[in-house]
Amino acid sequence: MGTSTRFDLVQKDIPQAWYNIAADFPTPMAPHMHPGTQQPAKPDDMLAIFPPSIVEQEFSTQRWIEMPEEVRDVLSLWRPTPLMRSVRLEKALDTPAHIYYKYEGASPAGSHKPNSAVPQAWYNRHDGVKRLATETGAGQWGSSLSMACKLFGLECIVYMVASSYKQKPYRRMAMETWGATCHSSPSNETAFGRKIRSEDPHTAGSLGIAISEAVEDTVTHPGTKYALGSVLNHVCHHQTVIGLEAIKQMELAGEYPDVVIGCAGGGSNFAGIAFPFARLNFTEGRKTRLVAVEPASCPSLTKGEFRYDFGDTAMTTPLLKMYTMGNDFMPPALHAGGLRYHGMAPLVSHLTSLGMVEPRAYEQMEVFAAATLFAQTEGLIPAPESSHAIKAAIDEALEAKKEGKKRVIVFNLSGHGLLDLASVV
Amino acid sequence: MGTSTRFDLVQKDIPQAWYNIAADFPTPMAPHMHPGTQQPAKPDDMLAIFPPSIVEQEFSTQRWIEMPEEVRDVLSLWRPTPLMRSVRLEKALDTPAHIYYKYEGASPAGSHKPNSAVPQAWYNRHDGVKRLATETGAGQWGSSLSMACKLFGLECIVYMVASSYKQKPYRRMAMETWGATCHSSPSNETAFGRKIRSEDPHTAGSLGIAISEAVEDTVTHPGTKYALGSVLNHVCHHQTVIGLEAIKQMELAGEYPDVVIGCAGGGSNFAGIAFPFARLNFTEGRKTRLVAVEPASCPSLTKGEFRYDFGDTAMTTPLLKMYTMGNDFMPPALHAGGLRYHGMAPLVSHLTSLGMVEPRAYEQMEVFAAATLFAQTEGLIPAPESSHAIKAAIDEALEAKKEGKKRVIVFNLSGHGLLDLASVV
Repeated sequence: MGTSTRFDLVQKDIPQAWYNIAADFPTPMAPHMHPGTQQPAKPDDMLAIFPPSIVEQEFSTQRWIEMPEEVRDVLSLWRPTPLMRSVRLEKALDTPAHIYYKYEGASPAGSHKPNSAVPQAWYNRHDGVKRLATETGAGQWGSSLSMACKLFGLECIVYMVASSYKQKPYRRMAMETWGATCHSSPSNETAFGRKIRSEDPHTAGSLGIAISEAVEDTVTHPGTKYALGSVLNHVCHHQTVIGLEAIKQMELAGEYPDVVIGCAGGGSNFAGIAFPFARLNFTEGRKTRLVAVEPASCPSLTKGEFRYDFGDTAMTTPLLKMYTMGNDFMPPALHAGGLRYHGMAPLVSHLTSLGMVEPRAYEQMEVFAAATLFAQTEGLIPAPESSHAIKAAIDEALEAKKEGKKRVIVFNLSGHGLLDLASVV
Repeated sequence: MGTSTRFDLVQKDIPQAWYNIAADFPTPMAPHMHPGTQQPAKPDDMLAIFPPSIVEQEFSTQRWIEMPEEVRDVLSLWRPTPLMRSVRLEKALDTPAHIYYKYEGASPAGSHKPNSAVPQAWYNRHDGVKRLATETGAGQWGSSLSMACKLFGLECIVYMVASSYKQKPYRRMAMETWGATCHSSPSNETAFGRKIRSEDPHTAGSLGIAISEAVEDTVTHPGTKYALGSVLNHVCHHQTVIGLEAIKQMELAGEYPDVVIGCAGGGSNFAGIAFPFARLNFTEGRKTRLVAVEPASCPSLTKGEFRYDFGDTAMTTPLLKMYTMGNDFMPPALHAGGLRYHGMAPLVSHLTSLGMVEPRAYEQMEVFAAATLFAQTEGLIPAPESSHAIKAAIDEALEAKKEGKKRVIVFNLSGHGLLDLASVV
């Protein structure tokens, strides 16, 4: 056989614990703040919308957080995920770079989102919760949580950003197949949704609005808690399975990355691939560059301010120190619904403020072109969100070509685009 | 960690050769016949529409057919595929049975079809072909061949059954992303298509009609050959990678199947999972039962006649000895587009005529119910075609429960249903 192009792990290699980067920051990150008192939020402040186990993870400074066995069993449905070397793309680019991608698209929902949906559903059930409310952009998170809730016997209510609700009917139907209820947001289900609709009946919606609705649903329904698919610390922890596996797989490949790339909407997918490599930068003196890629139309890391802001439009969440476009920012209804968020995960923001992340923004058309080149050389049709990482990987490979030097590139292919084709073609 | 539930192979375990069951039949199968002379077809007779390497495979009686290295490299994009034990489904059924499934849905097209599309495109390019014409039912085969053609630099023209063309726009868009041209069949591109349209402008189309159009396209365009996604011998050979891997994986699981199940439309997916186990029935005296599952609305194996018939509606293909509903059979526009074929692969038909296959037909609603139970316990949303195999696996598990005895069940989950959700919900 030819060159090895895939580096596979087996079930026992699924990480036993999640990595919490907060334990390794050289300077501590700014705490979440209580929106009323403007003082550091206490765990108790978050119990209205999150269960105790999740709040504990959110405030944890432990380096490793043990994964429950039942969570690990469910993750084994699609984990460990493959790490692939894209030799046909390298050849098309005529580059000396080696381009590897971690492929998260073989999960039941087609993306990395179930990595956090499964533990979130598990911990909520563990804490006696009966019903979870959440929001979703492109539908990746909503469908992932729908699946996870069904597996653990929880009811699931999803507020889906209106523009995606219209553009991505298959994602909504997946949620319904997994037994969830899905509302187009802004909806008539909440006071906040009704208010927005009365002001602008044809609004495309936004993640900020959908979060506000899900939080309102949570506090007005007994037995209900809220689940967030990105941004918060515990979500970033859960996604580190991606990078932890990738480190083992790069050992199998016999190389170490010069640069690690992830697209960044709320930040959890970038955190997932990058934080475990950041740890080795901290602890082993590695110098891997970490590149976070966002759409030019929603550029929180490259154009936003680093300050306290609300996570949602209605200003009901704790204040988070993050790069933000402002909590009332209304991004255009771009194709990459999963990247339409006004802020950036506090953990990712803090790492960026320390100068350890290179943020980068791309325009939609250049991202499309990269996605098409990838599909036509590597075979997989990437999700629009993941295509931002592909564009950066291609640019890195072309720089290596200009320099005439090998460069080892790892990017996260966070999902396939089979359900996003209406927006790709 | 808990019980092992997935049994993974690595890249070097991808089979080096395909298995040809014709070498092991106790009595030889009936040859394909020339439609004009009614005499056994000679390899030369097929060269008008197939390239020499594929014709050689079609007539081969060699037990093992070596896989080209470049084919194996491309297959490694998604192979080896996982073998999973569905412990949550077993628990929901409260059965002593062990239910395993081989999951083919993580391929770029979401099904087992690329297993044959990749070698077919490779051999055509090897033989100097520039352009491939084909038909597709649900779109699984057409999108797989589109991808394979793009990877090897061939042009690809797909005739897609009209009812699926309307119902499954995402599959069509996937073909276009991979650079193929896709026509709704019957189309205005061929004389046969125009004839059918003039007789019934609102026809739902059928695979038989689409095949006739693709064959006509082939013989009327220079540099063009035809590719078929099922039925023929070489397609069945290519799919045996499924069962060959599954045998190794069942060794890892430490069990051997009492029953192996695949859905059967044209027969290649059933052949893929079942033939390697049939070989061990032949050569090692194993007694594994082989169950082929078809929709009650297109029941070639359970209700058809075993006789010579054409592979297409226009009667242009060689005559094949197979279980058939008649080449003018027009199946209802049911959800499982991939199972809407009037005949059954001659290799599968011959094995069935020897009493070595248990055919079984199910109604659409009971198949839907099985698919929903699977999605809600195991997480994966199955393709409508694959759901027929799930229904049979569940029935086997419930019989085992009635008997109070363990039964080891292996079925092929040939694809995910994310692009078929309009028909599932």
